[in-house]
Order: sequence, then C-alpha cells, then structure tokens
Amino acid sequence: MTQKIFGHQNPDTDTVASALVAADIEKQLGNDVKAYRLGEVNGETAYALDYFSLEAPDLLNEVAAGDEVILVDHNEKQQSAAGIENAVIAKVYDHHRIANFETESPLYYRAEPVGCTATILNKVYKEKNLTISKEAAGLMLSAIISDTLLFKSPTTTEEDIDAASELKSVAGVDLETYGLEMLKAGASTADKTARELITGDAKTFDIGEKNVRIAQVNVVDVDEVFARREEIELAINEEIEKDGYDLFTLIVTDILNSNSKVLALGAEFSSIERAFDVALDQNTAVLEGVVSRKKQVVPNITKALSDL
Amino acid sequence: MTQKIFGHQNPDTDTVASALVAADIEKQLGNDVKAYRLGEVNGETAYALDYFSLEAPDLLNEVAAGDEVILVDHNEKQQSAAGIENAVIAKVYDHHRIANFETESPLYYRAEPVGCTATILNKVYKEKNLTISKEAAGLMLSAIISDTLLFKSPTTTEEDIDAASELKSVAGVDLETYGLEMLKAGASTADKTARELITGDAKTFDIGEKNVRIAQVNVVDVDEVFARREEIELAINEEIEKDGYDLFTLIVTDILNSNSKVLALGAEFSSIERAFDVALDQNTAVLEGVVSRKKQVVPNITKALSDL
Repeated sequence: MTQKIFGHQNPDTDTVASALVAADIEKQLGNDVKAYRLGEVNGETAYALDYFSLEAPDLLNEVAAGDEVILVDHNEKQQSAAGIENAVIAKVYDHHRIANFETESPLYYRAEPVGCTATILNKVYKEKNLTISKEAAGLMLSAIISDTLLFKSPTTTEEDIDAASELKSVAGVDLETYGLEMLKAGASTADKTARELITGDAKTFDIGEKNVRIAQVNVVDVDEVFARREEIELAINEEIEKDGYDLFTLIVTDILNSNSKVLALGAEFSSIERAFDVALDQNTAVLEGVVSRKKQVVPNITKALSDL
Repeated sequence: MTQKIFGHQNPDTDTVASALVAADIEKQLGNDVKAYRLGEVNGETAYALDYFSLEAPDLLNEVAAGDEVILVDHNEKQQSAAGIENAVIAKVYDHHRIANFETESPLYYRAEPVGCTATILNKVYKEKNLTISKEAAGLMLSAIISDTLLFKSPTTTEEDIDAASELKSVAGVDLETYGLEMLKAGASTADKTARELITGDAKTFDIGEKNVRIAQVNVVDVDEVFARREEIELAINEEIEKDGYDLFTLIVTDILNSNSKVLALGAEFSSIERAFDVALDQNTAVLEGVVSRKKQVVPNITKALSDL
C-alpha cells in the first residue's frame, strides 16, 4: 500500500517542503510513498517551489479507513486530514508538542524541539547516508527560513542555523537575498480577502476546556491589514458563530521589525490582555517582540486561560 | 537542573537497562542527568547487572512539579512515575504505541517499532559518534534478549537481531549461553508470593471504556504457577476489588516452548475467549504461540472489547 505523506491543514512552507522531502527520504529507503498537501499553497511556498522548478504535491481531501500515513510538521488530529482517526499512522516527523495524538500500535516517531521539521529531516539524510539533491536542499532551506523568519523567531535553534548554513551551498543560493525575497512573496496582503487572511495559516487548539483558533499572517506592512479591521472582524465573527470558538486571535507579524499586532474576538478575548499584559484598543494590541505562535502565543494563552 | 531518567513501573530489564544507557548517552552529550527505577529490579535484571558488575539505579517514588524528566521504554502516564502530569517531559526514547501522553511544549521524541528500546539507543550512539562501553553493550544486549525472549517473540525485528549481533562482541559474551542463563534467572516462581507474581510485570491499559490490567510472568515451568491457581485468583480478585479493573489477565509465558497459559478474571473475562478463540477452563486457557503482550495480547483484547 502506498503510504500518504502530508503536513497540517492550511499548509505553510515547512509543511509542504517537509512532505516532499520526507517522500524523497522514504523513496531512497525503498518505501512506497506519495506526498500530498491538505490545502492551497501560499504565496511564499509557491515562490520556493517555482524557484527550484518543483510542482506542488497533489491535494488530499481526506484519508480512508485503513490508509497508511506519514505525518510531517504536526501530530494533533484536529490539524490533520479528515478521517485521520481511522488511518494507521506509520511515522511522524515533527517539531511541535504532542497532544490529541494516539495510536493503537508502535510507530516511528521522530520529534526534536528545533525551529523547523526540515532541520530534523536534514539530520535523517545524514544519519542514513542518503543523497541530498539541490531541490531537496532548496526545500529544506526554504522551510527553515520560513519557520524561523530568517532566524529572527525565538523558535530558532543553533541546529536550524547550522542546517541552513549547510543547505545553502547545496541549494546554490545566497541565504539573505533568497530568504528575504521568499518571505516578501508571502507577505503581500492586498490581494487576499478577509477570509483568506484569517484562514490562511490558522490552527485550532484545545486549551483546557476552551476551543481556541489562532491565525497568523506574516507581512511587511501591518497597517495595510488593520485598515481593513472591520471587514476582518466580520469574517472572524462568522467563524466564531459557525465553529463555536471561545477565542479567535489573528496575529499579524511584521517580518522586518519582528513584532506582531493582534486582533482578538470571542468570549475569552480578555485572555489576550492577561496573556501579554496589554490593554486591547478596538480589539487590537501591539505585542512587542512576539513573532512565534508556538513558542510565545500558545504558551501565554495557555497560562492565561488556566489562571482563571 | 538534573534531569531524571526512568522507565515504567514494575521495571523489566529493558526499562532498567535503557534508563542506565540513556543516562550514559546524555552524559556523553554533556547533559546533567541521573537514572532511576520505579520499583524493585526482578531476578533477570539483577543477573544482568551482577554479570556486568553494575549497581541498580536508585529508587524513585514520585516526581515533583516542574521536575525535568526523560522517559524510556514507556510514555503512557498511568505506567509512569506518580506526579508525571506536573513534570516537564524533555525527551522520550520508546518502542511502544503512543497514548495517554501529552506535553505543553515541543520535546525530543524518539520511537521506532522495534523489539526493544535498547535497539534504538544503540542507533543513537552510532548516529552521534558516542563510545559504547562493555557495560553499556552488556546492558543493551540484556535488554534485547529479555524483550525478544532470545528472538523468539514476534516483536523481534531484523534491527534487534543486528544490534544484538554487534553488541555481543563488545559485551564479550556468548549470546545463547548468556541469554538463556539470564532468562532462567528471572524464570523461577517458587520463591515468589502470589502477589509478586501478579504485580511483578503488570501494566494497566485503558481500552475503550474498560480498565484492563495485564500481568506477565516468564517461566520455564508453567505448571509450577498453575498449581497455585486458587491462591493467585484470590490475589487477583483483591486487586480487581481495590482498583476496579474490568479485566485482569495473568499471562504465564513458557520461554522455552514459546507458548503462554492465561488466567482471566473480572467482569470482562469472556473477552479473552473472543480475543483468542479459546474456551476458558477454570478461568485458564493455553494460547499457542502467544508470547508478546504488546504485539499479541493487547491488540487482540482491544479488538475483542471493541467488537461488543
């Protein structure tokens, strides 16, 4: 049976790149696999794929009962493919916390607390003496640049920096130039609808008893987004009503200045004030130095919601 | 902070050996760690430690809130140390399914579907170019022999066999001779109380809505155990009453002939009949070819309990 490899919903560059790269690793190991994506590729990922003359993986809408799958860049079932409860998870390559995850049988699970899944995959190539092509190096490098915002995110580790340094020569690019162009390609918001802005890179978290949705968008012009605040609030309130979120947070991250401005709605909106010691004004607040959902936003909201 | 490394409750040879070996790995990597055990070492493990002139790790009764821990050979919280919910799990080295496990933050997780945790640790030494001492090799070899019952268990993989083959020369022992002596050292039941027999290597599993306790004892003389059936049933019924198990199963495994005889009590006793297509006689049945709790007993009981 061909094993299906995919990352999380609302795919970002690490999720798409890691699915393609993990497929390359598994094929070199003699396994029958195919990479997929669970949604549209964003502008940043499209830039990276185009630069290295690669096709995006096929779209996967759901997995069937008994399908064998390999997860990359996620493990929580609510971030995964529809039907994942009935699939057999053979392997996981990830760099997130483990939660809402359970298997019936032993599996291969490889997680490390580094900035990017691709940093782990780069290690796996070396441990198993596999060949890293220019394209695989380009994908892993793009994923590292994306997840670490060119090493400005606090999620960045020495291992991510070392991996990028190794990979840039194989990929044949100048790290700063390529990286900034790639990040900018994903940072334009003018051509996105309000719905696209709040769903493009959104993840759901069960925090205590609360159902929390956190969307993030990387931009070079924060004001361009907040000029459309009322339109965005309408879209968020629709999502809250439809899916019953207790808190919906849009994190608009300024990739040049490494700050974020947040928009928070839902019954638990005030948890944002406690989480970051800020006062919301028109449901918004600037979060100085905050760029990482995983390392800064989720832990702080978790604390704020459990201090109740 | 010194990180505490330990395996599961009712420690077996893989759990004790892997705690000691993982501590050696972490120390060689420059980390501040100490190995522990969660209960008394069994006769088999004592033989292995004595053979390689090693001390058992210190006993750990519980972990405190905020303690940093490294788990080996388990992940499910009900098999772990008291207080594990409030500890920070920094790393896991394991070869079991993942369940009842959740972290707040990203972590290092290394699992592979092989017969023994030590087989994975042997890989880690090589991946990181660390030194394997005679003692570490002896511990890993003992763990592999124990978990695979000298390669007779269906949990045995090629990787376990290859690892044992590498390690026996470093450890300086004859595999068959040493292995059989070690297994026999743990196989005498005459000096054990009924309570020791049913708690020595027992694990609790949440299967569907049911609370299932499965104890296993490896022996060379199955009749020696079942001559004491009534005494053992009394001890099991006490446990059922005290802890509310829906099913308590004692698996008595004949390590020379690779069969097991099972004793099943509790409201769900008949799930054993469905699980293995046998009829219980005096609450017992012979399970031909069954030696692995993980690969045979747990999956079959899971199916039987979900077919209701």
